[in-house]
Amino acid sequence: MTDNSNANPPISTTALTAPLGATLDALRAALGDEAVRVGDEIGERALTDWTRHAPTRPAALLLPRSTEDVSRALAICHAACQPVVPQGGMTGLAGGAIARANDIALSLERLTGIEEIDAASAALTVRAGTTLQTAQEAAAQAGFELALDLGARGSCQIGGNLATNAGGNRVIQSGTARDQVLGLEVVLANGDVLTSLGKMVKNNTGYDLKHWFIGSEGTLGIITRAVLRLHPQRAARHTALVALDGYDAAVNLLRRLSTRFGNDIGAFEIMWPDFYEFGVKLTGARSPFNGSHLLYALIEHASFDASDNGERFSAALTDALEQGAIRDAVIAQSVADARALWAIRECTAEFPVRLDAINFDVSLPISVIGEFVERCRSALNERWPGNESYFFGHIGDSNLHVTVDGHSIPGVDHHAVYAFVYEMLGPLHGSVSAEHGIGLLKREFLPISRSPAELAAMAAIKHALDPHGILNPGKLF
Amino acid sequence: MTDNSNANPPISTTALTAPLGATLDALRAALGDEAVRVGDEIGERALTDWTRHAPTRPAALLLPRSTEDVSRALAICHAACQPVVPQGGMTGLAGGAIARANDIALSLERLTGIEEIDAASAALTVRAGTTLQTAQEAAAQAGFELALDLGARGSCQIGGNLATNAGGNRVIQSGTARDQVLGLEVVLANGDVLTSLGKMVKNNTGYDLKHWFIGSEGTLGIITRAVLRLHPQRAARHTALVALDGYDAAVNLLRRLSTRFGNDIGAFEIMWPDFYEFGVKLTGARSPFNGSHLLYALIEHASFDASDNGERFSAALTDALEQGAIRDAVIAQSVADARALWAIRECTAEFPVRLDAINFDVSLPISVIGEFVERCRSALNERWPGNESYFFGHIGDSNLHVTVDGHSIPGVDHHAVYAFVYEMLGPLHGSVSAEHGIGLLKREFLPISRSPAELAAMAAIKHALDPHGILNPGKLF
Repeated sequence: MTDNSNANPPISTTALTAPLGATLDALRAALGDEAVRVGDEIGERALTDWTRHAPTRPAALLLPRSTEDVSRALAICHAACQPVVPQGGMTGLAGGAIARANDIALSLERLTGIEEIDAASAALTVRAGTTLQTAQEAAAQAGFELALDLGARGSCQIGGNLATNAGGNRVIQSGTARDQVLGLEVVLANGDVLTSLGKMVKNNTGYDLKHWFIGSEGTLGIITRAVLRLHPQRAARHTALVALDGYDAAVNLLRRLSTRFGNDIGAFEIMWPDFYEFGVKLTGARSPFNGSHLLYALIEHASFDASDNGERFSAALTDALEQGAIRDAVIAQSVADARALWAIRECTAEFPVRLDAINFDVSLPISVIGEFVERCRSALNERWPGNESYFFGHIGDSNLHVTVDGHSIPGVDHHAVYAFVYEMLGPLHGSVSAEHGIGLLKREFLPISRSPAELAAMAAIKHALDPHGILNPGKLF
Repeated sequence: MTDNSNANPPISTTALTAPLGATLDALRAALGDEAVRVGDEIGERALTDWTRHAPTRPAALLLPRSTEDVSRALAICHAACQPVVPQGGMTGLAGGAIARANDIALSLERLTGIEEIDAASAALTVRAGTTLQTAQEAAAQAGFELALDLGARGSCQIGGNLATNAGGNRVIQSGTARDQVLGLEVVLANGDVLTSLGKMVKNNTGYDLKHWFIGSEGTLGIITRAVLRLHPQRAARHTALVALDGYDAAVNLLRRLSTRFGNDIGAFEIMWPDFYEFGVKLTGARSPFNGSHLLYALIEHASFDASDNGERFSAALTDALEQGAIRDAVIAQSVADARALWAIRECTAEFPVRLDAINFDVSLPISVIGEFVERCRSALNERWPGNESYFFGHIGDSNLHVTVDGHSIPGVDHHAVYAFVYEMLGPLHGSVSAEHGIGLLKREFLPISRSPAELAAMAAIKHALDPHGILNPGKLF
């Protein structure tokens, strides 16, 4: 039917047109000797990300100080067909910023600082190497909230957050990293600088270039600056832990609370009993419920109204209880109470120490997550009897996490578990990555979530913007 | 510095490789005779859009019944290098769907209907030719709200809304059309079908293809289906008209109300006195204020709480009045009251009849809109003394509208007025199109808002996805 003129060959980097030594000389001349590190001058931080996967010392590490430096560096590498791997805070969980031995890594760590806070426009202009926490604090100081938050906030960088379209804690309320971006500056593979730092919510002047680069994992360009949207601060927060009869009850409760509170519902974290009971055990907490239940939801209500004392939220849960929509509920009466409830959900911080964790970050239509969990658990039990697995997720964002403990199935091949679970997503139109991205580690599973036509279109776009294939080769594709 | 390998030649369609007659024969064989209209079989609707600009009968009008039909049609036209102009409800205001005499128009009007409402996932799957109003009604019937609304709702189609990233009435609350999309199906120029109909909020599996097509005005692919996000319905609405001391006071009030009510502020429409007084005159309304003021804001508060009687909103305005932040305010006490207030803002419906309207739909950082209005008014008065011009806008969305009445400056060349006002945007980093798009009519002004590097990147992508340049040629670029 088609002539396949969009079907590009697999992405690969063109053969070097200059030896590495000559490229490094050109880079030193352009950026200064001190900005081009090799061998032992390259710190441990540049070798791998938070997965600790395959630490590798790149051929060189570039430390540009400006957008112009990044532009000069890429123009040189483009001409030489020299692969370049952009690096941010190295907190990724998919190996997306790990360089190979012949790659040049380019760290944004010196491109830091808040350039401007425009309070009237509710917009913050920031350089890519700034940590998320620094940006959050600047927003807070100006009386606003940056609606992006994740555990790695102290180390991860805005550029990396945007390049991977990070998710995190507030997606149900304010969307992913993508939804926080008003403007973006990107350096293309050939060194061209696209400066689209507009602060406007509405701007229909040709293709919306920022969306090409957000979530492209450094394969189409290197983000150097961004204009982020600022939100008003929420003034009152109330936390509840709810016991439920099962997944359908959880979805009904989510809809019921959304109808009543809109996006004042700031968290809706679901824990299946395997996870909940393990969390209680790990944290040494006491479950506030008598007996056990089929499902637990940790819910946060966050209101702009400083005088909101939580009565409406409490009344909504009381109604739900009286109508049989939920089994039980406790509402935190203090910040300490709320922290104790959150501690159960956040027991995942202990996973790397306590488990041989085989982690999944998948997404599915909200309507089928419950069914998937049941199918997945049965299939795991049949395939690996005695496995200990934990199911939990941000279901308002359609995001499910599963952790299988490798210790519980001695000698198991982690890769076999990954393949087994990912394969189950296909028929339910699920995604092999909700928020962590594809990077290096999920590359082989991408075709489960993307059709050949989609992959061909991505390759055509990659080829158009990075014809020599120098940007983050071997990632995503 | 760069070797410009991304700088493609200007976009143009490759010369026909088959005569039109042969292409039409192939289209008839593929879609059926009845789906290929020529000459007088083509209704008036296909000739131009709501601008009534240059009505033109295309060489043929295709009426596909399915995604497969669209795919077959494009594969044939791609092979023949035959230009194709996608058409929706023809309600555009930039000439983006007007075909030339040798183009083939392709109307989505038969691809209609809601395919599914998944209440648990809060997602609606709809075919591209469905009118916005039909989709809104289906959402409402299922107890949800589709957060996209615009005046053309009865005629405009979802496909066109997404292809142009429509704005409309609820952007301050829920974003533009782009923000409503969870999944998209698109047919590429060569007939390849990209079916990305996921319902997930979080989905980081390679490039997020839907964003490449939303707002691309039919130049990169033809949208055939979409999965739209559903929102809970708001239960209580309160409307106020506020008199202000000037633009800074308006921005302060917007921030004050946002801090207190978040995105329960559902409209924040600013009217400068020229507009307000004309609106009062046109509608025969009586201004609720004694004397005149420097600026007026029409504000809507929309809450999810059915028991919200407007007291908090009223109290916020009373506080503002007592603190000198506003000059005066009236709050609608009934639906009829609210309608009377909205009638002043909606006097624009009379503009086509009463004025020789030269309309602008621009956007600027919220912080500089006031300055732009003053500069623009002075410059217009200096250049065309006696001109009657009206300034108003959705400032929460950074969107300003200006209408200059050509009757007030007899013999004026409309194009000269357009060029004069658009040129003033450049230094303030404004955009020549906030929500209407570029289409045919703003094409020459696009470089005011986009750099050569941005335009080159757009051209590279256009070339990658539509190598023969058949999709909506002459638009956008």
